[in-house]
Amino acid sequence: MSDSIELMPVARITSHGQQDIEDRVIKELPLTIILNNRELVTLLCSPLDLDDLAVGFLASAGLVSSKDEIKRVTVDQRRGVVRVTTDGSYQPEDEPLFKRVITSGCGQGIALYHPSDIPQQGIIESLTAISATEVFTLVAEFQHRSQVYRTTGGVHSAALCDTENILVFHEDIGRHNAIDKVFGECLMQDIATKDRIIITSGRISSEMLLKVAKRNIPILISKSAPTDMGVRLAGELGLTLIGFVRGKRMNIYANQWRVRSNGKS
Amino acid sequence: MSDSIELMPVARITSHGQQDIEDRVIKELPLTIILNNRELVTLLCSPLDLDDLAVGFLASAGLVSSKDEIKRVTVDQRRGVVRVTTDGSYQPEDEPLFKRVITSGCGQGIALYHPSDIPQQGIIESLTAISATEVFTLVAEFQHRSQVYRTTGGVHSAALCDTENILVFHEDIGRHNAIDKVFGECLMQDIATKDRIIITSGRISSEMLLKVAKRNIPILISKSAPTDMGVRLAGELGLTLIGFVRGKRMNIYANQWRVRSNGKS
Repeated sequence: MSDSIELMPVARITSHGQQDIEDRVIKELPLTIILNNRELVTLLCSPLDLDDLAVGFLASAGLVSSKDEIKRVTVDQRRGVVRVTTDGSYQPEDEPLFKRVITSGCGQGIALYHPSDIPQQGIIESLTAISATEVFTLVAEFQHRSQVYRTTGGVHSAALCDTENILVFHEDIGRHNAIDKVFGECLMQDIATKDRIIITSGRISSEMLLKVAKRNIPILISKSAPTDMGVRLAGELGLTLIGFVRGKRMNIYANQWRVRSNGKS
Repeated sequence: MSDSIELMPVARITSHGQQDIEDRVIKELPLTIILNNRELVTLLCSPLDLDDLAVGFLASAGLVSSKDEIKRVTVDQRRGVVRVTTDGSYQPEDEPLFKRVITSGCGQGIALYHPSDIPQQGIIESLTAISATEVFTLVAEFQHRSQVYRTTGGVHSAALCDTENILVFHEDIGRHNAIDKVFGECLMQDIATKDRIIITSGRISSEMLLKVAKRNIPILISKSAPTDMGVRLAGELGLTLIGFVRGKRMNIYANQWRVRSNGKS
């Protein structure tokens, strides 16, 4: 935890005047991912779980699809470099990785998908269901785990869950990075994502929705708002989209049939 | 305003049970920017002020530096296309626009700068100063203007101000887009940015700090948290960085000398 936070001098002004204090500031690390000896990309991220981030990024980009393909992952935390060696079937120069869609993210992100990917994405048919009470309980636990967020207000969290428990949890200054860390750990630890649930602290725009749909995850829960494109894609792809979960309130935007009425199971 | 919001059917669950309602959802538009007849990039953005966004994006990317270079900007809102024609000195194929730094944004953004740009960025020497009371008043007004945010929780806001007034204000689902819209309007309307102040709803990571520093803006105010790299860069570049402005509280992270004690002027 302390790896991701630094104490820095801050002048705090309140109605009682000014105090010179030390306050927690979230760290940001430029991380270069080298795939098969070729520099692929540099992400700005939180300096935690860099191996999971690198593998998850490669998986989301469609460059790695199973643990078996990965021969070695070495992390040089000090220099901000992760080297991933795969079975060699993929060379970064083989294809234009970064299609020029810049995502809304909190700004202008490289898309790891292209609008033309959408028709290729199959409909999610999982029969997984969840009750409203289970949603509230999971999100309360998710909140509790978001320690860094609570102390610095600077990071996003993402988690893979079943209907009762958080199975994998990660944090990052980037909402895409947080989810990629979750998927990276799932891939490396053989944790199935099928029939499971993703919770994110961040907004659900189209590229976030597609990233989760690509993993065949049937239920996506956000503490924040979705966009209209996120809602439409969730509807079309058969993904249950729940947003604005706050206390005992939530909005269901698409495929409500997976949310059971409370008291029934 | 209504252009940026759509009413969509939502199942709202509260402790009183379920209601089927229509709720406001923020719109997301893929916007393709075509520069001198070449497709440059597609941004995911809010469908507001697309001309300002396109020009601001080009300015932040260093592809346009003055209004005089721009011969024509045409917006096709329905198709999501902005065509910008410049005096022809720049052709997109001339250089690799998108260096492979993926920014933290809320995830993975194309960087419009490169870490190697930092040494080229001069120190901001503006003598502009602001009082704590002026900061609180400006941020309260900024909050008041953030109408879309208040009704849907889905967008970022950015504003150019002097010490007393908001001069330019924009919103977007992307925090970088919101600031680019501000800079685009400034460029097209000949509104000076020198000696002025930027307020943003979003986090201050290194790429956000650099984007503002490039415009020689001496004071950056955020409602959210900065990262350690944002704080360090602000210190090195002579930019006054104020974060976590909430009610009558704020934190000054760098170059505090531009913040006057209250009551003195």
